[in-house]
Formats: sequence, C-alpha cells, structure tokens
Amino acid sequence: MRRVLSGFRPGLLVLQVGDRADSNLYISAKLRAAAQIGIDAKHLRLPSSATQDQVLQSVLTINADPAVHGLIVQLPLDSVNPMDPERITNAVSPEKDVDGLSCINAGKLSRGDLKDCFIPCTPNGCMELIRQTGVSVAGKQAVVIGRSKIVGAPMHDLLLWSNATVTTCHSKTPDLPEQVGRADILVVGAGRAEMVRGEWLKEGAVVIDCGINHIPDERKLSGHRVVGDVHFASASQRAGFITPVPGGVGPMTVAMLMEVTFTVTLTFTLTFTLPCRGNLYLFVLQNTVQSAHRFLLKIQAGG
Amino acid sequence: MRRVLSGFRPGLLVLQVGDRADSNLYISAKLRAAAQIGIDAKHLRLPSSATQDQVLQSVLTINADPAVHGLIVQLPLDSVNPMDPERITNAVSPEKDVDGLSCINAGKLSRGDLKDCFIPCTPNGCMELIRQTGVSVAGKQAVVIGRSKIVGAPMHDLLLWSNATVTTCHSKTPDLPEQVGRADILVVGAGRAEMVRGEWLKEGAVVIDCGINHIPDERKLSGHRVVGDVHFASASQRAGFITPVPGGVGPMTVAMLMEVTFTVTLTFTLTFTLPCRGNLYLFVLQNTVQSAHRFLLKIQAGG
Repeated sequence: MRRVLSGFRPGLLVLQVGDRADSNLYISAKLRAAAQIGIDAKHLRLPSSATQDQVLQSVLTINADPAVHGLIVQLPLDSVNPMDPERITNAVSPEKDVDGLSCINAGKLSRGDLKDCFIPCTPNGCMELIRQTGVSVAGKQAVVIGRSKIVGAPMHDLLLWSNATVTTCHSKTPDLPEQVGRADILVVGAGRAEMVRGEWLKEGAVVIDCGINHIPDERKLSGHRVVGDVHFASASQRAGFITPVPGGVGPMTVAMLMEVTFTVTLTFTLTFTLPCRGNLYLFVLQNTVQSAHRFLLKIQAGG
Repeated sequence: MRRVLSGFRPGLLVLQVGDRADSNLYISAKLRAAAQIGIDAKHLRLPSSATQDQVLQSVLTINADPAVHGLIVQLPLDSVNPMDPERITNAVSPEKDVDGLSCINAGKLSRGDLKDCFIPCTPNGCMELIRQTGVSVAGKQAVVIGRSKIVGAPMHDLLLWSNATVTTCHSKTPDLPEQVGRADILVVGAGRAEMVRGEWLKEGAVVIDCGINHIPDERKLSGHRVVGDVHFASASQRAGFITPVPGGVGPMTVAMLMEVTFTVTLTFTLTFTLPCRGNLYLFVLQNTVQSAHRFLLKIQAGG
C-alpha cells in the first residue's frame, strides 16, 4: 500500500481539552489504529485551563491546515471554563468533520441525504455490524434506546433511511420492556449498565450494544469491570446475534473512523491533486475495508 | 398594534419558480394572512424557464435585502431546467429560513437544539394543535407516518424532544394498521388519500392529518374534493381528537408562518436596532399568537 500511495498520506487530528482518563483511552485506541494502517494521526491536547475562544481558535487553525483531512473534537470537553460543545463541534469545517457531529452533517443525515454527509462513527459501525449478520433491515421493526447526538439520534436516521420502521425510546419511555420485545433489530445507547434484560428480547433479535459502563468487581485488580447496556448473559440466550462489551461496537467505531478518514482524504486528494481516480481509489478503499474488518469481532450467534 | 410598531414592519418573501396551481393556492393563503396581520409579504415569481443559477442568484439577493426577514422557497420547483432543491433551500440564509428547511436548521432540530433553530411550519403547527388538546406528549406513544423533510422527519423530532416514544412508519412499513393501533398520538403525512382507517386507531387517540389529496367527486362543480390521509368519517368515531381536511393543519401552518416571521423580525430588530426588549416583545408576541389562533379551527372531539 505504501508503494502505491507514495506522496499521499491521510492526516487525522484529535483535539482534546483536559485530561479525562476515559478520553485518553479512546484517543490512544484511535492513534494506535491509525498508525497500524498508515494514517498520520496527531493528538493536540489543550490544558483544562483553556478558554472556549482558545479552543475555537485551535479548530479554525486546524481547519486551515491542508495536511489534516479529518478533525475530531474529543468529547466531553474537560475544562474549568464554560464551554458550549455545539459551538465548538459546529466550528469544525464540514469537509473535515469525520465524526459527523456538526449540525450541517446531522441535518443531511436526519433528512436522508446520506451520500452527501459524514456519518458519526459509532452508528456507522453499528450499521456495518448489522450488515455482517446478513439480516436485511428494510421493513423490519428497529428499536433504538437513547437519543444522543453521537449514538441514538444518528442511529435512528440510518435505520430509518435503510427502510426499517424505527421506534426511539429513552429515559421517559414508560414501557421499555414491551418496546424492546417488538424489536427485530435493537440498538442500545442508554448509558445504563446491563439495563436491557434477556427476557425482554424478541427471540432471534439482532442486538447491538453501544454501552460502556464500569461496575464494581472485587475479582478484578482494578476493582471494576466494563459492561454494556445489555445484560449479556441473559440476552445471549435469546438474541440471534449480539455484540459483546468490551469488543463489539468500540473497535468497530475506531475502524469506521479509519475508513472515513481514508475516504475523505482520497476524495479530496483525487479531486484536487491526482490526475486519475478509478483503480487507485478502489485499491485503497478495499485495503481500508479489510483493515476495518480486522477490528470487527465476530458476532456470536445466540443460544 | 400599529401604534406600538411604528417604523417596524416584518417582511416576508415567497420565491416561486413556475406556475403550479397548488403552489399558487398556498402562496395566496400566505399572502392573505400576512396582509391581515400587518406583515409586508412579497411574492417573487421566476418563470419556469429559469435556470438553477438564476434561482440561486435570486436567493442570494434576497438574503442580502434587510427589508426581508423571512424567505420561503415554495416547493416543488416548477422549472423546465434541472433543479437541486436541497442546494436551493440550503442557500437560504439560516437567519431568514422561516421554513426551517436548510440542513443547518434541520440538524439542530433533529439533535434537540430546538431553541436555536427554525422549525418547519407544518410540524410546528401540528405541535400547537396537539398542545390545544390538553393531552400531554411526554411518555406517550407517538406514531408518525411519513419521513418527508417538510412534515414527517421534523414531526418525529418535535415529538421525540417533547419526550414521546416515537415510531416512524413509511411506505416500507409492512404492518401499518398494527403500528397505528399503538398510537396515543398519530400524525399522518403520507400523501395517500384516506389511507388510515378508523378501525386501525386506538380508542381516544389524537389524530393530526397533514394530507391534502384531491379525489374525484361528481357532486362537485370542480369534479373533485379535497381529503386528508385519514378516512375522516370512520376515524372521527374512534379518535379522541381529530383535525379535519381541509381546515385543520393547513390554516395552522399559515398561522405558524406568520408567528415565526414576526418573531424573527422582532429578534432581529430588537437585537440590532431598538434600545429595549421586554414588554414590547411580549406585547407583539401575544398579538401574533392571538392572530394565529384565529386561523386555528377547533379540534373536534370524537364520538
């Protein structure tokens, strides 16, 4: 790949404010994956004393840097000063917004202009996981738990525009077990440890768990372990397909970020710099997708 | 009102391409309502021979006109030339986009930033109609049929961020009667005459019908009559509240357009020109809402 791509290198920058331990973990996973497949990934950390104006100024500087093709603002922003995360994510140039969090990209996604926007990496990865099951989405009943900008809301959009009938549930939904029981495809991004129980599920459902929760566990040296929003032991008895936590959606999210960074770089480079598209584009894209699949843990068939 | 508002006049411009009979009807309803409540509404019609570049140029000119506070591009565009409606609605300045169709406004709405965006007038009017029933939305099961940019998709967003559990159905939904039967609140924007039958409904449901369909009727001089997407005769036997067609959502949409045009003008004027907000703002807003209610047909309680 390096031979074909001489003189061409995708650039990704992760902008962090402060020093949250969980953010550090996610960022290092992204940087490691990028290094493995030849993306030039940089990490810019501003101190937690940074002001909103300083963060905005950094975003504008990176927007103008031609060596950076994709820019991620790592959320949440860990600053002692007041921050408006919407204002900051909306300052990211729509052409470099590989996280798909700006309102321009969200607007296109929510209204079905999927070919003309960046899709947030977690729901994009969930769709890839669902595709890998071989279960077709069109005409199915999908249920999404959660309506966050990063997971639930764009997940609804992707399932809807793949022609599922989609129900969005959230903290104010009074009959969650009944709603879940109707789902052929269930995607959970609720942020509540092991909330979805196996007995709620429709037999054979596709269950995608986006939760990352830490619960106390005396048997672990750290004193805790990571679980999803789905109670895996009971759910795996009933689901047709289910993603584990850790190891399912998390690595797939990273893989999707790599793919989109490659794609945006290629689109940009091939449109404005290189004389030809075609084969080179296909070659690199294939390589990226193969790389992505290295991060994709096999989905386990339920009992 | 005229006394208080001396030297201040909201300006609305409706940009039309071509000469569709239905568009002409909708535009004249808007112009009439605007005249009634003191909005300076203009109608700019480009010929159906206009090119996309000419339409875009008109939008940019209107964007720059300080006397125009709200700009509507009447859809569909009736041109002999190829037109990309997304490109044209996205060219409308987000600050004048009183129809809320640009992807920036759609993005904010879809992700829950409702206080910082324009909401399309039809779903905004539907929410007002639902509020008028006194039925609280939070925790209810809402079902939306249709996923258009103008009705279904923003309707989903408004119900979701009012804390309903929302299911979006569409042409690929295989079990529509069953889905409809679960709805405490049903909003229909499907574009299919009398598709939803009374016997599908949950007893006591709130039914909001956004359809405008022409069906043959020999008894009428015109040879046709206008019906909604809901079969009114049977549905009104079962619904708790139901909007008629014509006369329900249509006039409410116009009223909402008047209100938002007033509000944007006031926000703009009071922020940049007038020395004070407060009482004057409240006074005018109240007048606008009262005007809006003049257009609101009473919702009829079902049998």
